[in-house]
Amino acid sequence: MSKLNPTHNPELKSWLESANDPSSEFPIQNLPFGVFSPRGSRDLRPGVAIGDQILDLRTLESEGVLSTPYPVFDGASLNDFLSLGPNLWSETRRALSDLLSTGENSPEVRRDGAERALVSQRDAEMHLPVEVRGFTDFYSSREHATNVGTMFRGADNALMPNWLHIPIAYNGRAGSVVVSGTPIRRPLGQTRPPGSDAPRFGACRRLDIELEMGVVVGSPSPMGKPVTIAEADSMIFGYVLLNDWSARDIQVWEYQPLGPFQAKAFATTISPWIVTQEALAPFRVSGPVQNPVPLPYLRQDGDFNFDIQLSASLQPEGTRDATTLCRTNFRHMYWSSAQQLAHHAIGGCGMQTGDLLGSGTISGSERNSTGSLLERTWNGTEPLKLQDGSERTFIEDGDTLALCGWSEGHGYRLGFGTAVGEVLPAIGHDWLD
Amino acid sequence: MSKLNPTHNPELKSWLESANDPSSEFPIQNLPFGVFSPRGSRDLRPGVAIGDQILDLRTLESEGVLSTPYPVFDGASLNDFLSLGPNLWSETRRALSDLLSTGENSPEVRRDGAERALVSQRDAEMHLPVEVRGFTDFYSSREHATNVGTMFRGADNALMPNWLHIPIAYNGRAGSVVVSGTPIRRPLGQTRPPGSDAPRFGACRRLDIELEMGVVVGSPSPMGKPVTIAEADSMIFGYVLLNDWSARDIQVWEYQPLGPFQAKAFATTISPWIVTQEALAPFRVSGPVQNPVPLPYLRQDGDFNFDIQLSASLQPEGTRDATTLCRTNFRHMYWSSAQQLAHHAIGGCGMQTGDLLGSGTISGSERNSTGSLLERTWNGTEPLKLQDGSERTFIEDGDTLALCGWSEGHGYRLGFGTAVGEVLPAIGHDWLD
Repeated sequence: MSKLNPTHNPELKSWLESANDPSSEFPIQNLPFGVFSPRGSRDLRPGVAIGDQILDLRTLESEGVLSTPYPVFDGASLNDFLSLGPNLWSETRRALSDLLSTGENSPEVRRDGAERALVSQRDAEMHLPVEVRGFTDFYSSREHATNVGTMFRGADNALMPNWLHIPIAYNGRAGSVVVSGTPIRRPLGQTRPPGSDAPRFGACRRLDIELEMGVVVGSPSPMGKPVTIAEADSMIFGYVLLNDWSARDIQVWEYQPLGPFQAKAFATTISPWIVTQEALAPFRVSGPVQNPVPLPYLRQDGDFNFDIQLSASLQPEGTRDATTLCRTNFRHMYWSSAQQLAHHAIGGCGMQTGDLLGSGTISGSERNSTGSLLERTWNGTEPLKLQDGSERTFIEDGDTLALCGWSEGHGYRLGFGTAVGEVLPAIGHDWLD
Repeated sequence: MSKLNPTHNPELKSWLESANDPSSEFPIQNLPFGVFSPRGSRDLRPGVAIGDQILDLRTLESEGVLSTPYPVFDGASLNDFLSLGPNLWSETRRALSDLLSTGENSPEVRRDGAERALVSQRDAEMHLPVEVRGFTDFYSSREHATNVGTMFRGADNALMPNWLHIPIAYNGRAGSVVVSGTPIRRPLGQTRPPGSDAPRFGACRRLDIELEMGVVVGSPSPMGKPVTIAEADSMIFGYVLLNDWSARDIQVWEYQPLGPFQAKAFATTISPWIVTQEALAPFRVSGPVQNPVPLPYLRQDGDFNFDIQLSASLQPEGTRDATTLCRTNFRHMYWSSAQQLAHHAIGGCGMQTGDLLGSGTISGSERNSTGSLLERTWNGTEPLKLQDGSERTFIEDGDTLALCGWSEGHGYRLGFGTAVGEVLPAIGHDWLD
């Protein structure tokens, strides 16, 4: 995490010109990991994004350009690589930086090997970067929890008594996590119309996004063993954008007393590239002051938040312009990812390589910095005007929702790419009515 | 599922004498599937229990005694076999029944092959039968939900308004599911002592069991596609005993508004043998009348419950006798497993081979038929007298908790074995205080 790490040097350039474009999301300081296939094939391979290209890690490994203790890039996910821990992650990142840089550490012969392993991003299809083992969704933005609490319980009882003591979370459905670009089918389910005693069945009418970041856990921890904040921090491999699609009308009817279930189980979209925590080191910032002071196992001292700019946008079907729904920043989170992970393991829950931890909806203090339509339109009471003149309270069929994220370095931009999904109409359900 | 299936014939006997003992849990009518290793080795293999032996399915398959479309028993879990669907499950069960029976379908030469594939259960160690993909825990006993609701909200508001319309559930932690025999470490966590504003940190003081059945999903369903009750029923491979260990003091402080998290994430124990739904066909019964009538997608017509007798017991460390905590029956469940699964998929959540669905705590209408200590001691206010003269409100260190289950056939007993775990003291936590 030292800022002296040469891979963070803002002056570093790549011999691959597209990586040096100041608008590129994937300069040599980034080097995010993902899984791709050459378009049209089902040959899934780990790779690293650089400029407008992907460096094929399986080829580099099998040709001996990249040295690993045993083959870790021969599978269809990054799990094997992630399980080996932070020293190997760091060594690999350093080797890739050397390989791609213009500097003296990148001799011609090795550069030739790398050039042969490049695949254009245009010619590749992206897949889930990891086999997601567990998906846990937190609720760690104070602004978001306060907004939702105010809407449903009033301003005086907005935050539950436990909220300032516990990084509140629920287990999500790991099998429902999909990669950016996957179409999202509007869910069916039970809702109870206002004023009615009996529920109705049908398509969700209040479909929403939740703008979140997702932590990808790399190093596992054994069952029965809590981890400290420092250990938790070192277990984190990296971060993705995460859209926890939510069916608000289903949620409000089903969630008591055991929490959200079908309202969140139909899809969660993540961006394909995992930006490593190491690449984000220059963007570490301190989080908000925590008052009351958390219990000792949750106390952190240092910069555990990250300055990552975030936005969400909506583009109706057949239109050319997307409307920005909100702009916010990951740095506002009340509970850090390290605190979330330390809390997750405190009771002895073993953490696994490939666990995904959603941050919870990331909202700032202004209305246009809130990460859900629920907040943005204040429970649907204040419709939002779009660029094409139409209005939205919640998502309509054919809308494409996109999350973006990036950290602004000195002369370079560390981008996360996008997490995007188009909403398809609910399937016909006469057979279920 | 027809009762004419010859594998259900109560007259059927095996040439393996221990299977014909009327007290055996594993007669030829049962044939439950599991994963074992010869004691001391890490060579995990799928097998079927018969009498006091295990039939090694990998050996049978590789020697051609058992025919499968491609090798499905060469892995360390049953997932490959389960993914192939109910026709193959049924054919395999029929072939195993023929192989093990005394009848004319079991010629001498095939019997020789089977005999060479037998391993004594005494010489085997049991493992998780499947790689658990998702773990979902339901809340489908009306008696249990009413008891818990009465304790915490009073008799007038015991059942939430949604309970009679939705098989309420939450996502659990799949990675915390362990096989019977695994010691359970008392969890650490946050609790808020009565009358205090601030939480404390330490070992759980109200550790509890939840006596449940678990459904193992065999056939997957694709994301975006709901399933009917009939389809759901056919996707179920079988059933295990399930103890959803619960930290009540942690739960009551953390669970609002997103449901239980660390209170349930430290361990869930299942029995090692999956009793197939096909073996249970003779024990199908109708469930309680559902009033109000559920929405059409949840309506079932027929026998979707199962007559399975259940009990839980507690044995303190260093004592010889276990005390029975409760006796109940799976037939009492308000929502059937098929209804649970149909509801799980209704919003488009894809179901996966190896998904585990807990039924929820199974309680009958009497105090001594309630499947948790929370109910049995009425929130700790009515201590329970044990055989050794000591008393319990919740679990103490060194206690061994065991669940048992069986269906009583005509002249045979279909047993589930046990789901057992000894509670170890919490680990030292000075470093966390």
